[in-house]
Amino acid sequence: MSLIKEKVNQAIEILKEQQTDMWLTFVRETSGVRDPVLDFLIGENDLTWPSALILTRKGEKIAIIGNLEKESLQRLDVFDEILGYDTAVSALLKETITRLNPDRIAVNTSRNNVHADGLTHAMYEFLKEYLAGTPYADRLISAEPVISAMRGRKTPTEQARVKKAIEITEEIFAKTFDFIKVGMTEIEVGAYMHKLARDYNVDLAWPAENCPAVNSGPNSPVGHNGPTDIKIEHGHLVHFDFGVKYEGYCSDIQRIAYVLREGETEAPIEIQRGFITIRTAIEKSREAMKPGVAGNVIDTISREIVADAGYPDYKYALGHQLGRVAHDGGALLGPLWEKYGDSPNQKLEIGQVFTIEPGLPVNGYGYLGLEEDVVMTKNGAEYFHEPQRDIVLLKG
Amino acid sequence: MSLIKEKVNQAIEILKEQQTDMWLTFVRETSGVRDPVLDFLIGENDLTWPSALILTRKGEKIAIIGNLEKESLQRLDVFDEILGYDTAVSALLKETITRLNPDRIAVNTSRNNVHADGLTHAMYEFLKEYLAGTPYADRLISAEPVISAMRGRKTPTEQARVKKAIEITEEIFAKTFDFIKVGMTEIEVGAYMHKLARDYNVDLAWPAENCPAVNSGPNSPVGHNGPTDIKIEHGHLVHFDFGVKYEGYCSDIQRIAYVLREGETEAPIEIQRGFITIRTAIEKSREAMKPGVAGNVIDTISREIVADAGYPDYKYALGHQLGRVAHDGGALLGPLWEKYGDSPNQKLEIGQVFTIEPGLPVNGYGYLGLEEDVVMTKNGAEYFHEPQRDIVLLKG
Repeated sequence: MSLIKEKVNQAIEILKEQQTDMWLTFVRETSGVRDPVLDFLIGENDLTWPSALILTRKGEKIAIIGNLEKESLQRLDVFDEILGYDTAVSALLKETITRLNPDRIAVNTSRNNVHADGLTHAMYEFLKEYLAGTPYADRLISAEPVISAMRGRKTPTEQARVKKAIEITEEIFAKTFDFIKVGMTEIEVGAYMHKLARDYNVDLAWPAENCPAVNSGPNSPVGHNGPTDIKIEHGHLVHFDFGVKYEGYCSDIQRIAYVLREGETEAPIEIQRGFITIRTAIEKSREAMKPGVAGNVIDTISREIVADAGYPDYKYALGHQLGRVAHDGGALLGPLWEKYGDSPNQKLEIGQVFTIEPGLPVNGYGYLGLEEDVVMTKNGAEYFHEPQRDIVLLKG
Repeated sequence: MSLIKEKVNQAIEILKEQQTDMWLTFVRETSGVRDPVLDFLIGENDLTWPSALILTRKGEKIAIIGNLEKESLQRLDVFDEILGYDTAVSALLKETITRLNPDRIAVNTSRNNVHADGLTHAMYEFLKEYLAGTPYADRLISAEPVISAMRGRKTPTEQARVKKAIEITEEIFAKTFDFIKVGMTEIEVGAYMHKLARDYNVDLAWPAENCPAVNSGPNSPVGHNGPTDIKIEHGHLVHFDFGVKYEGYCSDIQRIAYVLREGETEAPIEIQRGFITIRTAIEKSREAMKPGVAGNVIDTISREIVADAGYPDYKYALGHQLGRVAHDGGALLGPLWEKYGDSPNQKLEIGQVFTIEPGLPVNGYGYLGLEEDVVMTKNGAEYFHEPQRDIVLLKG
């Protein structure tokens, strides 16, 4: 079975579970604005004219699309009923919804999960207009619970792809650590990692300009930005944030290395102290991750460990879900800040894949952040790979 | 000057021309839902947390973004004022808009141009909430006129890229015509064109599955679908629809070939008649394309020529704009059908790049469609390349 069929069937099970009659994805010209759920419903195809993709809890799979795109959708073999039109979608849409007579229609608008928020404001207004005069105009609800569950609960196929992306990422890190020499710039190191990704024939998990982030020493700006011409020197902490995309699924990993100074055989005590703090924060967070726990609870555990050790608070969430994009949305291991909406209150579920990524500055040496990828099982979160347990020591 | 700077400056000129005080792009987690105007404002970068990009007719260029993305935006050197935040965007946004005190705020919602419709319904509601209690909540207007003008009026840099994409496409067509032999499947021909695109180091202008379309003979389904295992035979019309993307800008061209049967030195008269009809429709349409004319007028010219010759009406618009995507939105050479909204009523402007692409079936032989790419100048539409003036004859 194709992954699309697998996910569409999963979505129908979720509709049953959530007692939602219908999930309606309403889009147009998806080469311009692409609703992120389309990856799960029609793969890489685009839809040109106003189109409705309908799944119901009875198991119906219906597409209403322009006639010139029927052939392409038929080939996918996902939708049982494909209704084509030439000039106007409105009558056909109204007629089909009336026939199906749903109690509630979940549409892709969401305050908390951008991946459930593909319906533009204008398309929402069209929908209300097209359904005006029927009972259905007032039955629109947010598809956020449906989409968050479907994206979050990774099937074995999806998990295997993430795992493979992680394995490749680990290999690229190992080769990069061998490659690094004192005097190289962050940009040179980043370029080498790009080359390795090409060798492995994988895409990057986020835009190339900022993937990888490479931060060498105390003066390198940390955040969603790419490498600079700062040179790697003895006594630098070198921090990496990198991920690849394998068959549409991403990894997202941070690693830490230290470039030994003459006479040193290990990293200075301040760095070791920072490293242990971060390692502990990750491990304690992971141990607490059980199905049904809210992400915010986990975020708090890590944040307190870092604060108790006397470090400043990191201004981002402890961890996000990982999937078709690096930031996969839905339940978040995050603080209750406005910018995160309600996502930190959402509960952990089996099959979700999370990053855990606290960080702290080590004065005079640089930024120390680790990021590990875990998968939720019935027993809790399990590492997808061997986490970093020791500082990578580079001789330079 | 970078293309981003060029387009941002152009947008400010358009704000002046349209007497629009402010253009506000309000986005979040753009790896999930990406407002298509971001290509012009921040290039390939993503913005993770709720972010506002503001241009004003006074020339202000302001970004309100998460602190961890300030560095990356500073490097672009486009925004004069970059305001960062850690936890909440709302207060900073309200404060900034209040300070600028705009009469009208254009936001990215549009009924007619998907490329001006990047604001999701939930983000629209957030915006209204954040501005509640100020006069600005009621000053939101559609940025469609701003964005349609900016995307439509291609700068010389943009036109040069489209031209280069077209040149590569023409070379790929020429090589493909040399390659084709009777007995090959449409899929084999499509795969060869993919290989050539890789050789030229260009992306495809739309998803690979349907780019190219290859239709050989009367039984091949025509539309937005890819090649089938139908074999090329003597006596087949072979129709192609193909485009590439060069440095972010697309071509989109249809070509027609005929596979001669034994003893034939030219295509059968029915095919020639169809070809002349389409050629004439294109040429007459192009001649009528002058700045200030509505696209619908042009569509009607072509549609009447095809109808007068006794062929059925094609169920799509005569031509669309071409740019960063194959279907670039805004003014359309189209009929007044619901699915096209108001876009066929919009006026042609200098700098716009259009396709012209009527088509018709030739009974027993296959589909006959041509697609030429033209650019609007003060004198009217000019071909970007040599149009197809004769049927390509293949010996097979």
